[in-house]
Parts: sequence; C-alpha cells; structure tokens
Amino acid sequence: MSETIYDGLTQLGHAAPLPESPEAAILERVPNPQQGIGYLVRFTAPEFTSLCPLTGQPDFAHLMIDYVPGDWLVESKSLKLFLGSFRNHGAFHEDCTISIARRLVETLDPRWLRIGGYWYPRGGIPIDVFWQTGAAPEGVWIPDQGVPPYRGRG
Amino acid sequence: MSETIYDGLTQLGHAAPLPESPEAAILERVPNPQQGIGYLVRFTAPEFTSLCPLTGQPDFAHLMIDYVPGDWLVESKSLKLFLGSFRNHGAFHEDCTISIARRLVETLDPRWLRIGGYWYPRGGIPIDVFWQTGAAPEGVWIPDQGVPPYRGRG
Amino acid sequence: MSETIYDGLTQLGHAAPLPESPEAAILERVPNPQQGIGYLVRFTAPEFTSLCPLTGQPDFAHLMIDYVPGDWLVESKSLKLFLGSFRNHGAFHEDCTISIARRLVETLDPRWLRIGGYWYPRGGIPIDVFWQTGAAPEGVWIPDQGVPPYRGRG
Amino acid sequence: MSETIYDGLTQLGHAAPLPESPEAAILERVPNPQQGIGYLVRFTAPEFTSLCPLTGQPDFAHLMIDYVPGDWLVESKSLKLFLGSFRNHGAFHEDCTISIARRLVETLDPRWLRIGGYWYPRGGIPIDVFWQTGAAPEGVWIPDQGVPPYRGRG
Amino acid sequence: MSETIYDGLTQLGHAAPLPESPEAAILERVPNPQQGIGYLVRFTAPEFTSLCPLTGQPDFAHLMIDYVPGDWLVESKSLKLFLGSFRNHGAFHEDCTISIARRLVETLDPRWLRIGGYWYPRGGIPIDVFWQTGAAPEGVWIPDQGVPPYRGRG
Amino acid sequence: MSETIYDGLTQLGHAAPLPESPEAAILERVPNPQQGIGYLVRFTAPEFTSLCPLTGQPDFAHLMIDYVPGDWLVESKSLKLFLGSFRNHGAFHEDCTISIARRLVETLDPRWLRIGGYWYPRGGIPIDVFWQTGAAPEGVWIPDQGVPPYRGRG
Amino acid sequence: MSETIYDGLTQLGHAAPLPESPEAAILERVPNPQQGIGYLVRFTAPEFTSLCPLTGQPDFAHLMIDYVPGDWLVESKSLKLFLGSFRNHGAFHEDCTISIARRLVETLDPRWLRIGGYWYPRGGIPIDVFWQTGAAPEGVWIPDQGVPPYRGRG
Amino acid sequence: MSETIYDGLTQLGHAAPLPESPEAAILERVPNPQQGIGYLVRFTAPEFTSLCPLTGQPDFAHLMIDYVPGDWLVESKSLKLFLGSFRNHGAFHEDCTISIARRLVETLDPRWLRIGGYWYPRGGIPIDVFWQTGAAPEGVWIPDQGVPPYRGRG
Amino acid sequence: MSETIYDGLTQLGHAAPLPESPEAAILERVPNPQQGIGYLVRFTAPEFTSLCPLTGQPDFAHLMIDYVPGDWLVESKSLKLFLGSFRNHGAFHEDCTISIARRLVETLDPRWLRIGGYWYPRGGIPIDVFWQTGAAPEGVWIPDQGVPPYRGRG
Amino acid sequence: MSETIYDGLTQLGHAAPLPESPEAAILERVPNPQQGIGYLVRFTAPEFTSLCPLTGQPDFAHLMIDYVPGDWLVESKSLKLFLGSFRNHGAFHEDCTISIARRLVETLDPRWLRIGGYWYPRGGIPIDVFWQTGAAPEGVWIPDQGVPPYRGRG
Ligand SMILES: [Ca+2]
Ligand SMILES: [Ca+2]
Ligand SMILES: [Ca+2]
Ligand SMILES: [Ca+2]
Ligand SMILES: [Ca+2]
Ligand SMILES: [Ca+2]
Ligand SMILES: [Ca+2]
Ligand SMILES: [Ca+2]
Ligand SMILES: [Ca+2]
Ligand SMILES: [Ca+2]
Ligand SMILES: [Ca+2]
Ligand SMILES: [Ca+2]
Ligand SMILES: [Ca+2]
Ligand SMILES: [Ca+2]
Ligand SMILES: [Ca+2]
Ligand SMILES: [Ca+2]
Repeated sequence: MSETIYDGLTQLGHAAPLPESPEAAILERVPNPQQGIGYLVRFTAPEFTSLCPLTGQPDFAHLMIDYVPGDWLVESKSLKLFLGSFRNHGAFHEDCTISIARRLVETLDPRWLRIGGYWYPRGGIPIDVFWQTGAAPEGVWIPDQGVPPYRGRG
Repeated sequence: MSETIYDGLTQLGHAAPLPESPEAAILERVPNPQQGIGYLVRFTAPEFTSLCPLTGQPDFAHLMIDYVPGDWLVESKSLKLFLGSFRNHGAFHEDCTISIARRLVETLDPRWLRIGGYWYPRGGIPIDVFWQTGAAPEGVWIPDQGVPPYRGRG
Repeated sequence: MSETIYDGLTQLGHAAPLPESPEAAILERVPNPQQGIGYLVRFTAPEFTSLCPLTGQPDFAHLMIDYVPGDWLVESKSLKLFLGSFRNHGAFHEDCTISIARRLVETLDPRWLRIGGYWYPRGGIPIDVFWQTGAAPEGVWIPDQGVPPYRGRG
Repeated sequence: MSETIYDGLTQLGHAAPLPESPEAAILERVPNPQQGIGYLVRFTAPEFTSLCPLTGQPDFAHLMIDYVPGDWLVESKSLKLFLGSFRNHGAFHEDCTISIARRLVETLDPRWLRIGGYWYPRGGIPIDVFWQTGAAPEGVWIPDQGVPPYRGRG
Repeated sequence: MSETIYDGLTQLGHAAPLPESPEAAILERVPNPQQGIGYLVRFTAPEFTSLCPLTGQPDFAHLMIDYVPGDWLVESKSLKLFLGSFRNHGAFHEDCTISIARRLVETLDPRWLRIGGYWYPRGGIPIDVFWQTGAAPEGVWIPDQGVPPYRGRG
Repeated sequence: MSETIYDGLTQLGHAAPLPESPEAAILERVPNPQQGIGYLVRFTAPEFTSLCPLTGQPDFAHLMIDYVPGDWLVESKSLKLFLGSFRNHGAFHEDCTISIARRLVETLDPRWLRIGGYWYPRGGIPIDVFWQTGAAPEGVWIPDQGVPPYRGRG
Repeated sequence: MSETIYDGLTQLGHAAPLPESPEAAILERVPNPQQGIGYLVRFTAPEFTSLCPLTGQPDFAHLMIDYVPGDWLVESKSLKLFLGSFRNHGAFHEDCTISIARRLVETLDPRWLRIGGYWYPRGGIPIDVFWQTGAAPEGVWIPDQGVPPYRGRG
Repeated sequence: MSETIYDGLTQLGHAAPLPESPEAAILERVPNPQQGIGYLVRFTAPEFTSLCPLTGQPDFAHLMIDYVPGDWLVESKSLKLFLGSFRNHGAFHEDCTISIARRLVETLDPRWLRIGGYWYPRGGIPIDVFWQTGAAPEGVWIPDQGVPPYRGRG
Repeated sequence: MSETIYDGLTQLGHAAPLPESPEAAILERVPNPQQGIGYLVRFTAPEFTSLCPLTGQPDFAHLMIDYVPGDWLVESKSLKLFLGSFRNHGAFHEDCTISIARRLVETLDPRWLRIGGYWYPRGGIPIDVFWQTGAAPEGVWIPDQGVPPYRGRG
Repeated sequence: MSETIYDGLTQLGHAAPLPESPEAAILERVPNPQQGIGYLVRFTAPEFTSLCPLTGQPDFAHLMIDYVPGDWLVESKSLKLFLGSFRNHGAFHEDCTISIARRLVETLDPRWLRIGGYWYPRGGIPIDVFWQTGAAPEGVWIPDQGVPPYRGRG
C-alpha cells in the first residue's frame, strides 16, 4: 500500500517480541498529520498488568490515556508493546500510573495529556489514580472518561 | 393494632441487641398463614459480614435465600438478627453459606430451600456458593436469582 | 365510539374514587375476546403501597401479575382501583401478595395465574413473594418477569 | 407532497449507488430553515467502516457528529452516502475522523462542529478521536455524547 | 441487480403510502429460500402505535414477532406497512396484539409463531400480551425476547 | 375537589379528541403558582410520532422539554394533545423539534426553555436536535437530560 | 447508649403514627454536629406518594433532596414522617415538590438546598420538577443526582 | 515458537488480503486438539457488513456463532477473512445468516452448530435470524447468547 | 524485594488484627513519590460497616475518598484497617463520614480531599454525605464519582 | 486462630511466589467440610492472562469455574497461583480453557465441573469456550454464569 508517516518505524509490521522491561521498550512517534488542529486522542487499555513489588503477585488495571498532540502522535503498536513491557515489572499503583504518563510526555511533548488508572481491588478497596499535565487547553473537546465506580458484588 | 401470628415472638417490637454469635441468635418462626399454597419467599441480604477465621479480617457477602414454606414462616426480624450475629464470628465461605441454610432448614422444616452466597473478592477471585435442599418442588414458581457476575474494574 | 365488551362496566369512563378497602373494591371482568387462545396477559404495577399492620408505616412494592385467561379478562381500571384500595389497609407482605392473586383467581377463574411481589427493603433485607396456581399450562408462552435483585447502595 | 427545501437535491428520492471513494461522494446542503436560531444537530452513525491502509483489513467505528448550523444544513442522505464511501478506502483513525469533520466544515460553514470517533479495538487498545472547531458558541446547548468506555470482556 | 424472490411484489421498491386501515393493508409473502431448515425469524418493532377505541387517544407499544417459516417468508416492507396501518385504527391491547399475530399466521402458514406486545403505561400499570401458536417445534432454537420489565421512574 | 388554577381550562377533565393538526391544537396555560421561584419543569415524551413530509411514512421521537416558568405553566393535558396533534402531520426533524419549542415559548413566555429531540433511526443514522432559548438563567438548577446515545444492534 | 443530639426529639425511638396531613407533621431538627464545615446531605426517597387533587387518584414520585446545613440538620425520622404525611393529601406535582423544599428551608435555614421531583407518568408524559434556593455555595461539592430519563417500554 | 496444529495453514501469519467474495474465501480447519470432549466454541462478530442486493446499500449485523466441534476446529483468521469477504457481496438477511452457518457446517462437520444474526435496523424494524443444526447435544453446556433486544431511541 | 518507601511501616506485611476502635487504629503515611505533581488518588470502599449509636444495629456504606497528595500518601493497608475499625463502633452517618475524612486530613495534610458516603437505606430513605476541604485545586483532574442514585426495588 | 482443614497446606499463609509454569504450580485440596451435600462452588477470575504461542503477545480472559465438590475442595490460594502460572506460558484459547478444567478435575475428582472462558478480542472476533464434565447432577442448583456478550464499541 501507499507510503505513509509510518515508514520509518522499527516495530510496526514486524513480529515484535514483548519488551523485557519498560526501560527496554521503545516508544515510537510519527509526525502529527493534523498539525495545528487541537484534537484529543484517547487510548483505552483494559488489559494492563504488572507485578506488586512487595509480594511479586500480579496486579491488573484498566488504563485510559487522553492527549492533545503537538508535533507528534504516538505509534500505537509501540504503545501496546510499552504497556505490555510492565508484565513482569514490579510497580506501585500511584507510581506506575504516573510514570507511564510521564514517559509519553517525554516522547511526544504533547500540548496536554492525562491518564486514568483504574486498578483491580486487592483487599476490597481498589485505588484509582488520575493525573493530567495541567489545565486542559482552551477550546479543545475533552470528554469524560465515564468509567463507573467499583461496586464489589451482587 | 390487631392480634396477629406475630404475638408470641420475643424480639419483634422490642429493642433487640445484636446476638454475640450465631449460636446465641434465636431464629423464630410463625405459622404459615397460607398453608397448602406452594409459594416462594425470597430474602435478599446485601449487608452480610463475617470474619475470616484464618486472618481475622472482615469478609462481606450478598446473600439470597429462597424457600417454599411448609408449616412455618421465618420471622424476618429474627432472621436479620441471626445474619447480624455473624459479624464477629469466624467462618469460611463455603461452610458459612451452607450452615446458614441448614439452620433455617432445621428451624422451618420447609418444603424446599436454597441459598446463594455471592462473596466479595479477596485476591481478585471471588467465590460464590449455591445450595438447595434438592430438586425444586413441581409446579412451584422459582425465578432466577439473576445476580450478574463479578467483573473487576473499568 | 363503537359498542364494546366494556359497555356493562360500572367504573370505566367514570370518575371513580379510590375504594376505602380491598373489600370495598369491585374487581370487574369482561368476556375474553380471544376465547380458546392460550395467551398470557401481564400487568406490571410499580406503584403499589399498603400499610404495615404492626407499625402503621407505609410499605411499597413492585407487583407483577401474569395470567392465562379462560372465559374472562380483568377490566384494567377496576384492577388499578383494587390495587389502590390497599393504600390505607394493613397487610403483611406474604399474605398481601397472595391474597391479591387469590382475589383475581376468584373473579376470573383463569386457566393459570401467578404473582411476583417485589417489596421495598425494611431493615436492609427485602422480601419477594412468588406464587402461581400450579404448573404452567403446556404450550403457552410464559416469559420470565426479569426483575433484577435488590442491591442496596453504590 | 409539498414543495420543500429539498427540491434541488440530486440524490434524495433517487436510487443512489454507494460512491466509490470519499472524493467521488457529493455532500449536499439545504438552506437552514431556522436561521438565526442557535441549535445543535447530532448525527449518530454506529455503522461506519473503512480499510486499514497498511493491511487492507476492515476497520469499524461508531461516529457522532454535532454541529450548530449557520446558513446550511447537511442533507442527511448525502451524509449517509459520504460516510458509506469510506467502505473501500484506506484511512488511519486520527486522519479519517478529522477529515470527515473538515469536509463537513467546508461544505456547511457551520457556526461550530465537533466529531467523536469511537473505533473498534485492534490489538486490545481502541483509539477514540475527538475534535471540535473551537470553543462551543455561548448560549447554545451542547449535551455530552455519553458514549461509555470500551471494556473488553466479561 | 439480480433477479430475486422479491420480483413479484407490489410494494417493495415503490413509494407505498401508509394503508388507511389494517384491512386495507396488503401483507405480502415470498417463497422461503431455506425450505426444510428449521430457523427462527424475529422482527422487533419499537415504533408501533394505534388508538384507544374508547377515548380515541394514541397508544404505543414495542412489538416483537418470532416465527419459524414453512413455505413462506413475510416480505418485510409489507409487514412495516401493515403495522403502520394501525396508526388511526382503534384497538384494545389484548385483541390488537393477537390479531396482528393471527393475520400473519393466515398469510404465512408458519410452522410456529409468537408475538410479544409490550404496551406503554396508561394509569401506571402497563399491559404485556404474549401469545404463541402452540409449543415450540422440537430442535429449533428459540431465544428469549429479553425485554426488561417496566419500572416507572427514578 | 377544591377550586384550583385549573378551573378555566377547556380540555382538562373533558373527553378531548386528538386535534387534527398542530394548528388546531389549543395549548393552554395556568398561572404559575410559584411565581418568583426559579425552578425547572421537565416533560419527557417517549411517545411522539409524526409523518415524513417527503414519503408520508411515520417518524418517531423521544422528546424532552425543560423550562423555567415565568408567569405561566403549561397545562399538561393540553401539551399532551398538542404533541399528539403531530400524528398525521408532515414535519422534518429539525423544523419539527424547534417549532414545538417555539410554540411553547409563544404561549408561556418562559424565563428559559430548551428541547431535546431524539429521533428514531432511518437509514441507520438517527438525528438528534437540541435547542435552548439562550444561556441558562444564573442560579437555576438545570440537570442533564442524560439520554444515552443510539447504538444500533447487539 | 450514649447521650446525643437526638435526646430532645419527640418522634425518634417512639412508635410514631403517620401524620394525617403535611400541616400536622412535625419536622424536627438537631444541631449540626459539624458546624462550619460546608458539606452536602442527600436524602433519596423512592417511596413518595400523594393524591391528585383533581381526581383523587394516587400519584407517585422518586424524590431527592440535597442540602448544605447551616446550624441545623433535619432529623431523618421526622423527615420520613413528613414525606409520609402526603399519603392522603391532594397536591399538584410542581407545587408539591417545591412546597416540600420550602418547608425544609423554613425549618432548617440551610446554607443551600435543592429538590428533584421525578414523578411517575400519567398519560405517558412524566413531569420532573427541579428547584434550588440559588446558586450553589462556592467550594462545596454538589454531585449530580444522576437519575436516568423516563423511557416508557421495551 | 513450538510446532502446532496451525503449521499447515495458508493464511495464518501471512499478510492475507480480504477475499473478493465468499466464494473466493478459503475457510480453513485444524484438527480438534480436544477430541472426544463435548465443548462449545463461541465466536462473536460485531463487525459484520454486507450489501443489500436490491439497493446496493450497506447492511450491518452482529453475528454470534456457537459450535460443538467434532474432528475439526475452524481456524479463526480464516473465519475472520471469510466473514470479511461479504463486504462487497449482496445478500439478504435470512439467506446470508444461514448460508454462513452452512458453509461452516460443510467445512467442519461439527457435532452441532448454531448462528444468531442480529441485524441493524432498516426502516425501524430490525430482523434477527436464529438457526441451529438440530437439538443441542445432551450433556454439553450451551449458554444463552444473551443479546438484548433492539430498542430504538431514548 | 527492593527497598521502598514502605520500609518503616508497622502494619504492612504483618498479620495485623482489626483495631478495636477508630481511636486505636494507626493511620500510616509514606512519602509521596511524585512530589510536585498534582494528581488525584481515589479509594473505593464498598465494604464499610459501623453500628447505629441509638439502636446498636449494623449500618453499611459505600465510601469513596479522593485526595490530591501533598508530602504524603496514605498507606493503603493502614487505611483498610482504619476503616475496618468502625466495625463495632457507634457512629451517625453525617458525623462518621466527615470524621473519617478529617482523620485523613490530619494525617496527610493533603492539598485537597473529599469523601462521598453512600449509606444503605434504613426506613426507605438512604442518606448520602458529601464533603470536600474546599474548592478543587486548579488544573488538577477530578473525575465524577459516578455513583448512581438509590432506586429501591423492581 | 482455631485448627482447620487448612492446616496441612504448603502455600496458604506463606509468601508464595508466582509459579513459573502451570506444570510447576501445585494445586492443593482440602477435605470437603460439607460432604454429602450437593452444592456448587463458583470462582470468577477476571484477571487471567497467558501468552499467544504463535506471536508471544499477551492474551487476556475472564474465566468462570463452577464445580460440585465430591470429597475435596480446591484451596483457593493454590487456585489463584495456578491461574497466575499461565502468565508467561504460551497457550491457545480452546486448549488453555479446557486444560485448566481438566487439571482441576484430576486434582479434585468433583461430582461435576464446568468452565467458561471469555477471551478478550483479537482482530475483532473474541472466542468463548464452554465445557462441562457431563450433564449437570440432578437436584443440584446450577445458576447461569450470566456474562453478557462482547459488543465492540459505542
Ligand atoms: Ca464532563
Ligand atoms: Ca429462569
Ligand atoms: Ca430469561
Ligand atoms: Ca425463562
Ligand atoms: Ca452528561
Ligand atoms: Ca458534560
Ligand atoms: Ca435468557
Ligand atoms: Ca432462554
Ligand atoms: Ca450536567
Ligand atoms: Ca455534574
Ligand atoms: Ca455526572
Ligand atoms: Ca440459559
Ligand atoms: Ca461525568
Ligand atoms: Ca463532573
Ligand atoms: Ca439466568
Ligand atoms: Ca438459568
């Protein structure tokens, strides 16, 4: 098919193994094809998992990432591999959620970004973590993430 | 108000303290006012709590009890106090659910009874326990309990 | 408009005051216009209220009545007035639910009838009452009532 | 029937084949019959499909378009055909969503417009794209699109 | 396009006005292209409306029709026009629901048919009507209609 | 019963036939019994139907009307008859929704009014229309209408 | 148990009959134990019923009351009895909703109060009534009431 | 990775273009790795689309396929390509649904198979099609497909 | 595993019995690992229970706590034990909810904190309590708690 | 605390690392404390993950296991570790689901067991796998698993 902004990438279209750690993961970017347009891109990742650094047991989370691109878009396969790289990595909930966002901010230098981390319960009281880089840019449409609260059973 | 089947009861209409244990609780019964009629009575108790006998930590459950009365109905305030009596009592999920049902069977000698115990998650994998005294009686209407499955987050 | 099976009725099309008690209510019937056809009629009444005979406090219920007519249909305005007549009447949950059904059985002599009484919680543990006149007639379609279980809060 | 603002249109009321590409599609407009009134028109299109330009595989999206008309309304059959024209067209999610909106802006010169593109998952992490032409006009009612987040399974 | 079983029809592909009454409506049929296969066809019509024969006021219903075809399928545009023909016709709920089904039975001579009529409330107590031609044929898959009960407000 | 603000009305308490057109419908008003209080009145009408002026086929909508009364309230039976008068009237979605609101504005001279018209799909892409008379009055509570988006099937 | 702010009350802890009218009901208050703290108290009452003053027929509503206390809290049993006192009282929807709120304002002199009255449908078009005493106080958390719209059937 | 039952396949792990028609699609199978075990495999395909053979306009459906394998499993990528091959193919709803199932039956010779086709509405009345190869095999677990009915708007 | 900010804690990683009262509970804190970042941490606790100080009967609540950390994070196991310590403690709804929040404020000195207490019904009218320490900090993302209102039955 | 059936276990109450493979995992059992009682135990595990043996990419599933115990109960911590042991193990969906069930059957020799595997979508078409050891035992209560179908987006 036609030549695209995706041509220089190292992982897209190749059999890419899961990176062994977040540090080993390569978060790639492509030029924003709609520069100067204030739009929001949302990734919803209900399949996130990491390990508890205290017990080594698996943790799970539903992550949602919203950003308003500047010069760059994140390449989505590299994002998927980056998120997958936490699979055997120990990470606390608050730190983990925010460091994912910060890695994206570093790579993309977006106009604005936020992350919602909705963690599965341990001991009956789940933790959610919410962070944004600052007040939302004026005139850009930022819908609710709309995730219902945890309810337990019944 | 008028004389009723509830007149001989010891707890109804009195300030009844929470019993200290299931053994201390008095499960009371009243004559079935619709004898010979095959009907189902359902109690839904989303406020059940007991303690884990291994760790002493609180457990929670949503309980649903269905029964087809014979000669007796359970008096509902005594049922509430009986369920409340597990508050500081250690009990495993399977045993606890079934022993509540058995205590009711003993007291009421119902034509049929079942219990659904929908426990809150511990470690991410909740347990449900389902028991009935046998095949449902012919010709009696036994609707589904209709509790949706646990789903975690998001 | 045209002459109908409703012509002989005393309450339909008139300003009918709420009857003072279930005994005072007149449950009316009209000839079944589809005789010999085994069909189900369902009434859903989320606006039922009576009084607790012990405390005089209001009780509320969502009632659902299913029946397979024989020679008669219940006239729906008279049913509404009959249900409304419990407004200032003291009635226990089990008795009340079943006696409504029995009054309908007496009036209509249906092929089959059932009632589901879904009562609002008092003390955290609501009661549901389910009764049918016997096994459902063969070959007649009887869908679930499909009422979800009580869940408390959150 | 009566003469209307729709009389000059080329596709409405005719058997119009699906256009072969977005470029071949003719987006038509009619005079706004409520000029000077600041109102919002919402189109909800859960049946959008295009092709992935890298793999040629089908993509699907639920699209929602909100606009505040100026002098023109979009003719809805031409909008349907325009959206249908992406059926065999390769398009990336971000670009596709925003270029649909821009084509509408070009044709209609609306006071304001936004688009929400809710794409089906590929690889477990769906992308949503949100764009508006700028801050919403003062005093116009702009309800939420209210689409719940993707949740995976269970 | 290609020649089809739809070629002999009088309404499909033509501008067909709404019939003035159910009697004036022409319910058309086409040969069953899957003869000898026991399958179910379901039509869901949430847009049904008729008039109350006593008051002349509009009534609304959500209708669902399931049938197992024999030699014939109903042509769906003619079904739509037939249902639309009740728009200015007076009809009681029970009669109306069942007579729609009977007209279909007459026209199609199906192996089996059922109808669920879910009427909007009048006076707070909606009526549902359920009818089938007899016990469902053995070995044919007949899913629930799955309509939730009316709930009033809140 | 007691004398009320409803005494001068022509339709309330009478057998009022469905008006033959919106023009023939008489929208009545009563003095606002809570003058000087900034409150919102919401009417929810899931039973609206009109005809398509191009094809004569029925259209359906779920309408929601919110207003902050000034000197007048709309009399609700006359509103019901007014909405019912569109039954055999041809009307486009955008025009129809807004002209209903304008007729109410004319009759009531409210402090503020808005309408949401949520139309059933034709061709897979339903139209919603939202209009308000201007920015909502300060200090008055205006809840969301909260209607979920159209979703198609499955 | 211990001495509390509830000690001076006349109804709490006693068998209190349902008051015969709103005028006869005694709405009691207790000192706000968290004075100087700007918090919101919400009461949700899905069991409200009154009579239609024109027809004498029962009306039902789901009521939600939010207030920011000043010096006083409402005593909740007296609130329940006050709401119950409308049981045999004639009241129009708009008036009834707002007069309940005003009675609370009179008794409590709160910093702020609002009421949402979500009435059950009569004739297919339910009325909701929303009122607040003015703009919400700065810096106090006032969540949505979140009641979904009425939908009719299906 | 390790040698598997997938080794002989022509499409899995290759860039496979969308087949031009159902006839051109190659439905592949692999040996059932759990022979002799009566289990059910369910595929849920909310992304199905074909063309109307009369108008050439796109149709959409949510398809669900359940089968109990005999000697063979369907290879899921080939199933995806087979379903995708209807993209530019004209097909009526009843015929299309059942012929998909029959093609699977031919290829797999399963112990049992069923298909549910839940089509998006055209003209307000969607069609669902349900077929199974015969009565479900004894002792095999066959859960409901659990798809809620179409509801229109609101 | 690695050394962490959790190393100085007294309860984490130990078998910690349920504290006998809120006063006996030790609420622990750890240094905020993301200092200077304005993020929100949410705890959702659907398993809260205390006793009614007037009757000694159990009360239940769904609690949600949101805070923007300053120098400290709450250690989550100590929070769980603190909430568990209300199990046999008498507490009124308003006081209890707010005093939990105040204890957290004292311990953590957060930039901002709020609590939502959603109590299970007693007598049919549940109480919710909402408090925040003041207006939300600028530029920090504070999502809705999104808890649906209590609805009773049906 | 008291001596229990859990006393001989090797993992419960110890810091147990995640097993490196399913083969390395030790599935433990305890004597059934309710021998002779036909009851069902349900485990719901929304946090299951394994690897695709062809691509090495992560897969996710929501698993539900129902069984009727004979002489043994599964110890739930060992079940959790067993499920966790698939984390870095390659497994096809059909094989994986059924082999988990078979391992449980081997260990527990239950009267009856079934498993539902609800896998997250890959390529838009998720697979569910359902297996049971045979027809359900007579007279034992086996509720639906009640998992709604996958729906994609919107
Ligand atoms: Ca928002
Ligand atoms: Ca059932
Ligand atoms: Ca069902
Ligand atoms: Ca059923
Ligand atoms: Ca909203
Ligand atoms: Ca909003
Ligand atoms: Ca079902
Ligand atoms: Ca079924
Ligand atoms: Ca809002
Ligand atoms: Ca809000
Ligand atoms: Ca909200
Ligand atoms: Ca089933
Ligand atoms: Ca929100
Ligand atoms: Ca908000
Ligand atoms: Ca079920
Ligand atoms: Ca079942």
